[in-house]
Amino acid sequence: MSAETLRVTYYLTCRPGEDPHDKAKGIALEQSAELPSRCIPEHVYDDVVPTIQELTALEDGRHRLVLDFPEAITGLEPTQLINNLFGNISLKSGIRLADVEWTPNLLRALGGPRYGTAGVREMLGIGERPISSTALKPLGLDTATLAGFCADFARGGIDLIKDDHGLCDQDTSRFVDRVQACQRAVNEVNAETGGRSLYLPNVTGPRWELDKRLDAAQEAGCKAVLICPFLTGLDALIWARERYDMALMAHPAFAGAVAGAEHGIDPALLLGEITRLFGADMVVYTNAEGRFPTYDQALCDRINDRLRRPLGDIRPALPTPGGGVDAARAPYWAERYGPDVVLLIGGSLYAQGDRAAAARRLQDVVEGQ
Amino acid sequence: MSAETLRVTYYLTCRPGEDPHDKAKGIALEQSAELPSRCIPEHVYDDVVPTIQELTALEDGRHRLVLDFPEAITGLEPTQLINNLFGNISLKSGIRLADVEWTPNLLRALGGPRYGTAGVREMLGIGERPISSTALKPLGLDTATLAGFCADFARGGIDLIKDDHGLCDQDTSRFVDRVQACQRAVNEVNAETGGRSLYLPNVTGPRWELDKRLDAAQEAGCKAVLICPFLTGLDALIWARERYDMALMAHPAFAGAVAGAEHGIDPALLLGEITRLFGADMVVYTNAEGRFPTYDQALCDRINDRLRRPLGDIRPALPTPGGGVDAARAPYWAERYGPDVVLLIGGSLYAQGDRAAAARRLQDVVEGQ
Repeated sequence: MSAETLRVTYYLTCRPGEDPHDKAKGIALEQSAELPSRCIPEHVYDDVVPTIQELTALEDGRHRLVLDFPEAITGLEPTQLINNLFGNISLKSGIRLADVEWTPNLLRALGGPRYGTAGVREMLGIGERPISSTALKPLGLDTATLAGFCADFARGGIDLIKDDHGLCDQDTSRFVDRVQACQRAVNEVNAETGGRSLYLPNVTGPRWELDKRLDAAQEAGCKAVLICPFLTGLDALIWARERYDMALMAHPAFAGAVAGAEHGIDPALLLGEITRLFGADMVVYTNAEGRFPTYDQALCDRINDRLRRPLGDIRPALPTPGGGVDAARAPYWAERYGPDVVLLIGGSLYAQGDRAAAARRLQDVVEGQ
Repeated sequence: MSAETLRVTYYLTCRPGEDPHDKAKGIALEQSAELPSRCIPEHVYDDVVPTIQELTALEDGRHRLVLDFPEAITGLEPTQLINNLFGNISLKSGIRLADVEWTPNLLRALGGPRYGTAGVREMLGIGERPISSTALKPLGLDTATLAGFCADFARGGIDLIKDDHGLCDQDTSRFVDRVQACQRAVNEVNAETGGRSLYLPNVTGPRWELDKRLDAAQEAGCKAVLICPFLTGLDALIWARERYDMALMAHPAFAGAVAGAEHGIDPALLLGEITRLFGADMVVYTNAEGRFPTYDQALCDRINDRLRRPLGDIRPALPTPGGGVDAARAPYWAERYGPDVVLLIGGSLYAQGDRAAAARRLQDVVEGQ
């Protein structure tokens, strides 16, 4: 396999009567030339149509398909890359995109996190230990109240205090007011306590707002932001990384990354590897034992592995398990996941009543590791 | 239901042991406050958490859930709207978003097509008849060859000649070269024949390229463009509609709109209604009897209905069935779908060898209606 070939693995589930080889051939054509073979000029065929490297029947009835895509068809462009990997075939059924062996050119073109695990630690001024995070919620509260929560969590020493991803620019708490009030709140508490809590506003918005929100965050002095790249488009991560020097925490809303599904993109690839490659320094995903029971431990371990594993010059990103993590289990998760993790605990802190005290208890756990 | 309530219908498929009422309640909280009920301040709860209007057990084992969302939680913002409809729950399973009763404010905020069916007809200078479309392909051909195909199709009178959605800015045909060459080709042929064929370049790209490509298309004199909003982010449609005066043809690549799936968004809602509301004048979808057999006739009819039905002041958009339409069946589709349709026929024209002649045959069908 030349360095200019992108090797992609799919798992195929055939419907009754659906022939796996036809399905495989169909995928290769659909994702490239999108013409019947006989209509493709010969000199173009080999340059464009992926070759089938492997089509193996598995014991569970599925087939593993490995295609070698000529890298050039991506134009090294992020939107076209996603199109080639899962564009038209996303409308079909029984096709699960599972793995990609990236070319050096594509790794360079995408770039990965600006800060990554080490950079976020440096930003927080901490060594090797788990990082704590919580969310300002619920949507519907006014800015002063949310800023008060922010101060409580900072007082408890929480490392990363983010907007709930559902907060954007609603009338109850306008974005610009909130970013200023919350950043001011952490500044004041940090000045008192000597702490270094960071506040992360949710900058997610349509593209005519996104840059304004990033500008406002930067002006307010934020060092990191939250963004939902599956709402904005994944390219927003690369764009934000290039134009601003704030760390990026990605939230998986609308990713449609369904655990164990016959069709779609394996969450470990989408939330783990692809989101990291597109520039997220921290990637939120829904942890095992939380509100998303289909995300079992094995899947979460695979997501973590994708976020951390060596990948050319791409920095590792921080797994940020959330979605119903129980604060009482923080010691367990810190142990199990090790220091290269952000433990995102929301509801479970609020449920304890005294936010600053609950935050301090969590912070003692992560600092004690 | 007040005018400020967004009524949303989901179909739930419960796993063994999963209680439908818990699932319904979970969705309401997940898509709004994202906290356990007891942690939500009372005065906020009613303002933010959707109420369950209906939870009905169906004969097929599923449940129909109807939630009334307070409109205000969307902030009337397109990214947040999508988040509220299917953000976190996209990561779960057994939840199918099927219908939305839009509020007047949301319809206004989204806006719908700038041109719509009538506007595209006006642009083409035609009356009530089906519109023809084809695609320049395959990826891998050089610009001169693609421009030659463009001329062939224009000579045959095809109304809308678009880039294949896989063409972007690859070395084999750079975007700026192609848009200029193809627009020039249609200009020349139109001048000769008196025709009014339009060329639609694929402007899809990451956000730092999208505006440049739209600018180049406008400068070249294009009257319409192709865009893949599920690669760019749906907000790109609204943005392009507002900043340019070219008509927008949306392509469903990466929409993940799986026909008949237990989980996800009903393609009729996503490709039909939502893509129309975000500003697409024409919406490509994969027609029945083509390469996407799960898109059966009933689904295609529902997509057409969503694109065309009265919806406040929102203009209707043109269904653009493609994905393997057989040119020999054009009379059948023209009859079945009626005049408010764009018949997108690619491979089947190329397979006939003489592109201009094949185009003319298709054009005779649509003009004869």
